[in-house]
Amino acid sequence: MGVTKHLLVPIDFQSIFMGPATVCYPYNYEKSFHLQALNQQQSKDSVYFRDGVRRIDFILSYIDDKDGEKKQVCHPPSYSLVSPECVCEVSAQNTPQIIYYIILKMPILSGSRNTLFFGTCRYWTRSRDANCESERYSLYKYWARFSSFYKEQPLNLIRKYYGEKIGIYFAWLGFYTEMLSYAAVVGLLCFIYGVATFDENVWSKEICNDTIGGQIVMCPLCDKKCGYWKLSTTCSSSWQSYLFDNTATVFFAIFMGIWVTLFLEFWKRRQARLEYEWDLVDFEEEQQQLQLRPEYETKCTHRRLNRVTQISLIIACIIGVIAYRLAVFAAFASIMKDSPTNKLDVVGTLITPQFATSVTASCINFVIIMILNFLYEHVAIKITDMEVPKTHVEYENKLTVKMFLFQFVNYYSSCFYVAFFKGKFVGYPGDYAYMFGKWRNEECEPGGCLIELTTQLVIVMVGKQVWGNIQEALVPWLRNWWVSRSARNHPESLYSRWEQDHDLQTFSQLGLFYEYLEMVIQFGFITLFVASFPLAPLLALMNNILEVRVDAWKFTTQFRRPVAAKAHSIGAWDEILNMIAVFSVVTNAFIVSFTSDMIPRLVYKYAYHLGSESTMEGYINNSLSIFNISEIPVENRPEEGENPDWFYSSNITTCRYRDYRYPPGHEKQYTHTMQFWHILAAKLAFIIIMEHVVFVVKFFVAWLIPDVPSDVKARTKREHYLIQEYLHDYELEKLKIQLSQNGPNIEPCTCPATAATSVKLEVFSDCLS
Amino acid sequence: MGVTKHLLVPIDFQSIFMGPATVCYPYNYEKSFHLQALNQQQSKDSVYFRDGVRRIDFILSYIDDKDGEKKQVCHPPSYSLVSPECVCEVSAQNTPQIIYYIILKMPILSGSRNTLFFGTCRYWTRSRDANCESERYSLYKYWARFSSFYKEQPLNLIRKYYGEKIGIYFAWLGFYTEMLSYAAVVGLLCFIYGVATFDENVWSKEICNDTIGGQIVMCPLCDKKCGYWKLSTTCSSSWQSYLFDNTATVFFAIFMGIWVTLFLEFWKRRQARLEYEWDLVDFEEEQQQLQLRPEYETKCTHRRLNRVTQISLIIACIIGVIAYRLAVFAAFASIMKDSPTNKLDVVGTLITPQFATSVTASCINFVIIMILNFLYEHVAIKITDMEVPKTHVEYENKLTVKMFLFQFVNYYSSCFYVAFFKGKFVGYPGDYAYMFGKWRNEECEPGGCLIELTTQLVIVMVGKQVWGNIQEALVPWLRNWWVSRSARNHPESLYSRWEQDHDLQTFSQLGLFYEYLEMVIQFGFITLFVASFPLAPLLALMNNILEVRVDAWKFTTQFRRPVAAKAHSIGAWDEILNMIAVFSVVTNAFIVSFTSDMIPRLVYKYAYHLGSESTMEGYINNSLSIFNISEIPVENRPEEGENPDWFYSSNITTCRYRDYRYPPGHEKQYTHTMQFWHILAAKLAFIIIMEHVVFVVKFFVAWLIPDVPSDVKARTKREHYLIQEYLHDYELEKLKIQLSQNGPNIEPCTCPATAATSVKLEVFSDCLS
Repeated sequence: MGVTKHLLVPIDFQSIFMGPATVCYPYNYEKSFHLQALNQQQSKDSVYFRDGVRRIDFILSYIDDKDGEKKQVCHPPSYSLVSPECVCEVSAQNTPQIIYYIILKMPILSGSRNTLFFGTCRYWTRSRDANCESERYSLYKYWARFSSFYKEQPLNLIRKYYGEKIGIYFAWLGFYTEMLSYAAVVGLLCFIYGVATFDENVWSKEICNDTIGGQIVMCPLCDKKCGYWKLSTTCSSSWQSYLFDNTATVFFAIFMGIWVTLFLEFWKRRQARLEYEWDLVDFEEEQQQLQLRPEYETKCTHRRLNRVTQISLIIACIIGVIAYRLAVFAAFASIMKDSPTNKLDVVGTLITPQFATSVTASCINFVIIMILNFLYEHVAIKITDMEVPKTHVEYENKLTVKMFLFQFVNYYSSCFYVAFFKGKFVGYPGDYAYMFGKWRNEECEPGGCLIELTTQLVIVMVGKQVWGNIQEALVPWLRNWWVSRSARNHPESLYSRWEQDHDLQTFSQLGLFYEYLEMVIQFGFITLFVASFPLAPLLALMNNILEVRVDAWKFTTQFRRPVAAKAHSIGAWDEILNMIAVFSVVTNAFIVSFTSDMIPRLVYKYAYHLGSESTMEGYINNSLSIFNISEIPVENRPEEGENPDWFYSSNITTCRYRDYRYPPGHEKQYTHTMQFWHILAAKLAFIIIMEHVVFVVKFFVAWLIPDVPSDVKARTKREHYLIQEYLHDYELEKLKIQLSQNGPNIEPCTCPATAATSVKLEVFSDCLS
Repeated sequence: MGVTKHLLVPIDFQSIFMGPATVCYPYNYEKSFHLQALNQQQSKDSVYFRDGVRRIDFILSYIDDKDGEKKQVCHPPSYSLVSPECVCEVSAQNTPQIIYYIILKMPILSGSRNTLFFGTCRYWTRSRDANCESERYSLYKYWARFSSFYKEQPLNLIRKYYGEKIGIYFAWLGFYTEMLSYAAVVGLLCFIYGVATFDENVWSKEICNDTIGGQIVMCPLCDKKCGYWKLSTTCSSSWQSYLFDNTATVFFAIFMGIWVTLFLEFWKRRQARLEYEWDLVDFEEEQQQLQLRPEYETKCTHRRLNRVTQISLIIACIIGVIAYRLAVFAAFASIMKDSPTNKLDVVGTLITPQFATSVTASCINFVIIMILNFLYEHVAIKITDMEVPKTHVEYENKLTVKMFLFQFVNYYSSCFYVAFFKGKFVGYPGDYAYMFGKWRNEECEPGGCLIELTTQLVIVMVGKQVWGNIQEALVPWLRNWWVSRSARNHPESLYSRWEQDHDLQTFSQLGLFYEYLEMVIQFGFITLFVASFPLAPLLALMNNILEVRVDAWKFTTQFRRPVAAKAHSIGAWDEILNMIAVFSVVTNAFIVSFTSDMIPRLVYKYAYHLGSESTMEGYINNSLSIFNISEIPVENRPEEGENPDWFYSSNITTCRYRDYRYPPGHEKQYTHTMQFWHILAAKLAFIIIMEHVVFVVKFFVAWLIPDVPSDVKARTKREHYLIQEYLHDYELEKLKIQLSQNGPNIEPCTCPATAATSVKLEVFSDCLS
């Protein structure tokens, strides 16, 4: 107790450390340190070793293992720097590599499941000791408060305190939020356009009109459980739908295709500038890449083939999709069974029964997504562990791809289903299509698939964001609160700075990975399906403004200071963002063509309109085909009691359905009409034109914008030049001195320089070549 | 005469040279050197300086300027190493940068229009002097002969003798030829499939059948000058067309989309391997990039804006296209005026009048292309000169883009026109479409546009290749022959090696650029329009096998040895090839959909066939619409005498045309039928499906194939590791020695090493960081 034991560090280890002093103490958490602090009258805020000169930057400590079971180790623990009973105070500035090295090797090399943790003195409350730098406090004060949401982030300070890797994340997040604001404004304008042109919405008027929509009897949407219904019940969803389904949306889809390109291109420039300013131009990730993961070293006996796991991943993915889809299908089907469309009339002006159904279904879907997410996460980590990647960078990249694929499937598959499959391959009343010969392919909700997609999107996106923020902020806070409860038993005066740091949550190695993942999934929502909901960027913007500060608060107050790591880019995410950007153009083109009613309406307006003027009047009647009720097969007919009362009170012989087929009695009855093929050609032509135009513009813009700003390029070149000139001058100077020493003997070929300079020159020229 | 003058090289210059000896002689071409050779009894084959020790690698020589006019120079000629009257023998191994430096600066610095040339002793005939290395002779013997066309190229020798830049070109050319052979084989199989299924070609039989094709009277193809014609006249072009227009072609188009990706991906790997083997991994092009062009230095007073020239380039491009198109149009129109279709009957079984017309038109087109090419080339160089690029690399990149754009437009525009515009927007007999209200839009030749495209392609492609080889090989040969005629006046014994070298042609700085350009344009032909002519890769293969050896012959025997330059890739061409690869998928999808008759045939077969079986019978009749001759406007009717005799002898009231419109008398007469929209939808759907499938496969394949082979990656990593370990060990050793010198004093923090080693260590650690 109170007796310190200095350990001599072996030379081997020192050569890695390149000089810092490492001092270790016997570790007895409860007593020794507090007593020391009391005995030596050192301030509990102090961040210095007891010699008062060297500062404590990192603390390595071991908690003794409960069970004495030893794991097998590949390498003998030759660097047995730290015994499980002692804590080392390591002062090592600007050498995160060394810290990394210790942190990575220790748990394995020491041979037991010790928890190795580290923190710094810089707790986020203001220090009472003026000598303790309060970078963390500055960050807390100027960055982590929501009230400063409109301010730029103090990126240089973040980088200084947390290292480049975290710095780049916040720079990216800030830039993304900034760019989002443009998309949000344009999206809002499109929405306002929709509101402003509300009156021009002729077809909604027709649906709501008692003499048109009120007279149209629609065929049942499912077998047995669904009855006939009147088109006028979809009146309000039709109005809602118009807000997101008008010409402005097409414009917005194209705009977003180009916005995405601009975002990615300008980010490249921003990144290049940061790289220059943060002095990362010549930094190679090779150093970190060469660091082997200890798991690899221990399990290095047999390595699995990559291909096998890759294929197993794909299979797992597909199985996941199918399992998930079936689950959702079952959920939907159970809801559809007691579909309220035929039982309830309009509840209010906004909350229609269809809307309620749709929202309920989306909520259930969201819950399923969350549960599956939890599952997928573990599967992804498991698969990646099984692959035993060699280095940490490799591990993270492999996990990134897998996690992203799983989450992509999980979050977006329901949207893809609603957008591109639901209601597309349903057949027609006389000949419905069945999946596996058993389940009838789902029809769209009466209000149309687009409004359903919008609902789905809003619920999943908003739900994910709210849930994400709760999980991110609340969970560490609760944990810290729990830990600090027990710490409160210590007398306050003994609760030293580094102990307070120690009691905070660890920032896991994959912490930043989850932050990126969250943002990239959000990026997917605002780009892939933006044609169905132009307000998505606005929602994302609002979330991100909050997110920046929540993250900042979390980093400064809830987590130990993570070990600084270098990075000069956002890594594998850049490629994923680019893929999403390309993919989003395709999905939006298909949404406009196949999910929205845009193209059929335009074709009607210009080619099939009534009278001589191009008008939308009569569109509703034109867009619905007629079917003879008596020809509906028995198994498709509604059960007794499913039909509303008005159905029996009037003599109804035909019902209508959404398709372009010849009416009964026509020579080609129930086959597609010419208008069908005409519309199909127009839809496909729209896809081709939109894709080609957007891609050409995209690549042209990407080509036009240089990846590195010209001033950064010029400065880098100039610095290279200056170095070369400096070295050249230096060499020349040496040569002159050497020549003058040798006197006027002019034999330039064989002039050996003096030993000292020649060595230096030799090495210099090695450096240069 | 015979008196040599040694020039002392100033220090400044020597520091650039890093030590080689440079000796200059007074230059008097006719006399001094020959006399020297005679006087000193040195072998005329000798490649050594007169001291017999140092070898002559390069020779710099000046020819005195005829007119004494001096150009203004930005920098004063401070490095006045060489006066116009002397020749320098420079021995500088492995320092092409230095040679470059002299070569680039001299002509400007010396202030007169001197021709600076350089060659080496290694003439391609076997040396009689055993000391003279005969690398060039080996190259000539084992590489430049056509008889060794099946052998691999001696790439390492090429690299050693000509440098990496030329080495990479031949490696690329060889690899491209190798990959072409796969495409050629598959293309040939597709062609054989066409030949083998000749009999299943029902529609050609119908065309040739007297009772079907012989009875169908077609509407005239142009105003006034064209008469009515019988479908059976296109009998043989229909048969020819089938060879290239069958299902195998669709398969081949998709295959080529993927082949292109494989080619580019495997080339990346090959390039990475070469980079490793030729030790270019750490080579940066910065060194060369930093070298300013002397033209930039002299004209550096005011620099044009890049944007302005870029825009002017685009405008010039467009004007070029229009001018060119109009010229071709005029040429075509004049041919069409006396179109032989109505005057001649079938000449032979293969050479039909349509075929003759088409070939003639293509030949004229080719001549125009060649003339315009000459023009475009000068324009491109002029524009690039006007931009005054800073470095040579920049100059070449800028010129590459411009030249490629111009040549792209020049070579391909006629193919694009035939494939996608000709015959597409012609209207119908009652309402023909006119360009600028004046020229009627051209119809396709009676045989269809696909066969016309094929003809066009073959003529231009083969013509270009033959012409290119003639120009490449014959022109330097003729020039050398001319020069050697005058040289023959020298007595044979005096005609020394380096003089013979000197008499060869200079390899211009853009020489390699033209080689690449030729190949890339060829690459465009075999990818962009491959759906119309599956034999194109075979033609290209045959050309390239010849091309490799012609180039080799040319390099070894007709040109002076160029200054070796480093390069670790094919530069800007890689990007251009990638662009062509992406673009080719689009063009091929459109060719299959819109140029060939594939889709209409399939739609007929599966949806509109006669009877219950899906058959092609009746397709010809179905694909032609009917027009009432009496309704054709007067201005569209054929002039007197243009119609064939049979037209007057029988009572013909209707003619047929290629389109899907209702016949006269129908309630919607002359509007598009449902089949038209059906086929259009099918065409567009095919484009969408083909593009998406090919692109997905493309990107998946590109993602699957790593850019660097795993063994090369591992070796590079291992070498990096070894270097690090070596340096670490070295440092450790030094530290140990230093510690042992200081005795057992253990104070590890303040141990200043001895001066000499500390300097070295300092520099080493600088190298490492």
